Amino acid sequence: MKVEMHGAVRDIRAAWFEDGELKLIDQRRLPHSLEIVSTTDWRLATTLIRDMAVRGAPAIGIVAAYAMALAARSGADIAEAAAFVKGARPTAYDLFYAVDSMVAAISAGEDPAAAADAYAETIIGKCSQIGRFGAPLIKDGMKVMTHCNAGALATGDWGTALAPMRVAKNEGRRFFVYVSETRPRLQGMQLTAWELLQEGIDHAIIPDGASARYLADGVGLVITGADRIAANGDFANKIGTFDKAVLARHFGVPFYVAAPISTFDFNAPDGRAIPIEHRAEEEVLCMAGMRLAPEGSHALNPSFDVTPGDLVTGFITEKGVFAPHDLDKMQS
Amino acid sequence: MKVEMHGAVRDIRAAWFEDGELKLIDQRRLPHSLEIVSTTDWRLATTLIRDMAVRGAPAIGIVAAYAMALAARSGADIAEAAAFVKGARPTAYDLFYAVDSMVAAISAGEDPAAAADAYAETIIGKCSQIGRFGAPLIKDGMKVMTHCNAGALATGDWGTALAPMRVAKNEGRRFFVYVSETRPRLQGMQLTAWELLQEGIDHAIIPDGASARYLADGVGLVITGADRIAANGDFANKIGTFDKAVLARHFGVPFYVAAPISTFDFNAPDGRAIPIEHRAEEEVLCMAGMRLAPEGSHALNPSFDVTPGDLVTGFITEKGVFAPHDLDKMQS
Repeated sequence: MKVEMHGAVRDIRAAWFEDGELKLIDQRRLPHSLEIVSTTDWRLATTLIRDMAVRGAPAIGIVAAYAMALAARSGADIAEAAAFVKGARPTAYDLFYAVDSMVAAISAGEDPAAAADAYAETIIGKCSQIGRFGAPLIKDGMKVMTHCNAGALATGDWGTALAPMRVAKNEGRRFFVYVSETRPRLQGMQLTAWELLQEGIDHAIIPDGASARYLADGVGLVITGADRIAANGDFANKIGTFDKAVLARHFGVPFYVAAPISTFDFNAPDGRAIPIEHRAEEEVLCMAGMRLAPEGSHALNPSFDVTPGDLVTGFITEKGVFAPHDLDKMQS
Repeated sequence: MKVEMHGAVRDIRAAWFEDGELKLIDQRRLPHSLEIVSTTDWRLATTLIRDMAVRGAPAIGIVAAYAMALAARSGADIAEAAAFVKGARPTAYDLFYAVDSMVAAISAGEDPAAAADAYAETIIGKCSQIGRFGAPLIKDGMKVMTHCNAGALATGDWGTALAPMRVAKNEGRRFFVYVSETRPRLQGMQLTAWELLQEGIDHAIIPDGASARYLADGVGLVITGADRIAANGDFANKIGTFDKAVLARHFGVPFYVAAPISTFDFNAPDGRAIPIEHRAEEEVLCMAGMRLAPEGSHALNPSFDVTPGDLVTGFITEKGVFAPHDLDKMQS
């Protein structure tokens, strides 16, 4: 993605390996400052996932792959490191997919850093393909809605939900994006809006609760990412996705999910098999260290909801667009 | 409502007249501090409505009635004062209903302060009746969802959506309330949670986008207030209400709207006739003076959405519970 750093426009990724170090954009500091953190410590890399310096299922997978490369280089026990890295967060399937890919590569004697780089290249290439397959859905003059951040920050580069928008923009089409702010952590307001600004794509931030208001009034397409997709098309994604899928169905708006095949968990028959992370209630009750809620009240803070596959019009993948009942064809 | 002030539990209202002064709870300071502001200036009283020191359609009506009483006492031109007070905010119908009631009372030679007190008593009495009619909907062990604040703060006392909960609690039933935080101004998190704490009613704050997650999982009843209800049952209420009404229909959860007849605008044939206030984008983009969004991004901030009447199971009023197609029976 193109970003302005130190007065110049640079093309960077959400995370990369450079001179033996893992470097990544600290997404907790955006949009206020673009800060790059570096580490050679695979445990610290895992902590950066856990503490959400990096988030988004494909980007979590990429950082996990680099964490495994750092672990291999440091002489750590690979099985122990794999278990530790997998423990960073429970829902995003790419985390498990990436660690398993790296364990296989390291066991096969591949160079760990080269294997992690190859993993990142592969995922980013898939996202570029997602953009190519998804772009035709975005027509000139259309209003599109998205939720959370499924952009370059979430995937290394290109994005999943945002990749078709990048391609449609590059192809010269004009369209408008409603960005739901995505409480409690505001990834829509703080990350997606920031990416769309960098790309020069017209957009407006809306409160999550304004979804029905705008879906009833001319939105032609909803696209979100996913953190894990079960074999029947049920999928976990940022809390609030389920709301939008039901609303889109009610208003007759097509609802697409963009994800690389690394996000599909074919061992999960349906959504009930997807573990859902619940994060600290302070994410809801406080902002910038200041308590917003009355003392004594508590909050529920599930990070993800599970949307039934039958609410999905299609899954945009690197192999094309698949209806929920056609997911088995994707594996062939 | 019972609140703790200066170390003692007092029974106060959201707004009242005392020694020739209008006094009201500054709801912008809750839940952090309970501050009472006073004024004898009818223009300042109007500003307190505009700046949302008081909000909630019935409470806006009560403060507008007191503003008219202050205007009459100061010798202001009543027609001019009425137009000014009505200009405070556009959506809540109680504002217009209250001002027209006061103009009629003053024209008939009634004492303005006594007329305003009578107006407040009447509205609060209606809310108490709403509690009586709505309470049987809340069963022991039920999970209930509400949005924004339609409590004592929004209505003077008792509340509309919260009145049935107060009565059900007083009748000894145990139930649990999901309070959606209600971005951007967080009236759910900051006002409804505070009221439920005072009443000792079990509750949890949820992000607005967690509505589908919890409506799909055992919620038995949704109750909200309303700012204006058209003759066909279409109604304006806090942004996010429309989302919950569609979701409730999808999941088969009964959806009730609680409001006194002062909120019904029988001159509006349907929702298209309800003017909707759009507030400053900074309410979405900033918090506590700190900008959250990237510089250059904009927000849309409609304060209200309009929910079609056919999504409403029933309107809980001081005259009983009415289905949307039976609203004409309410006037008789």
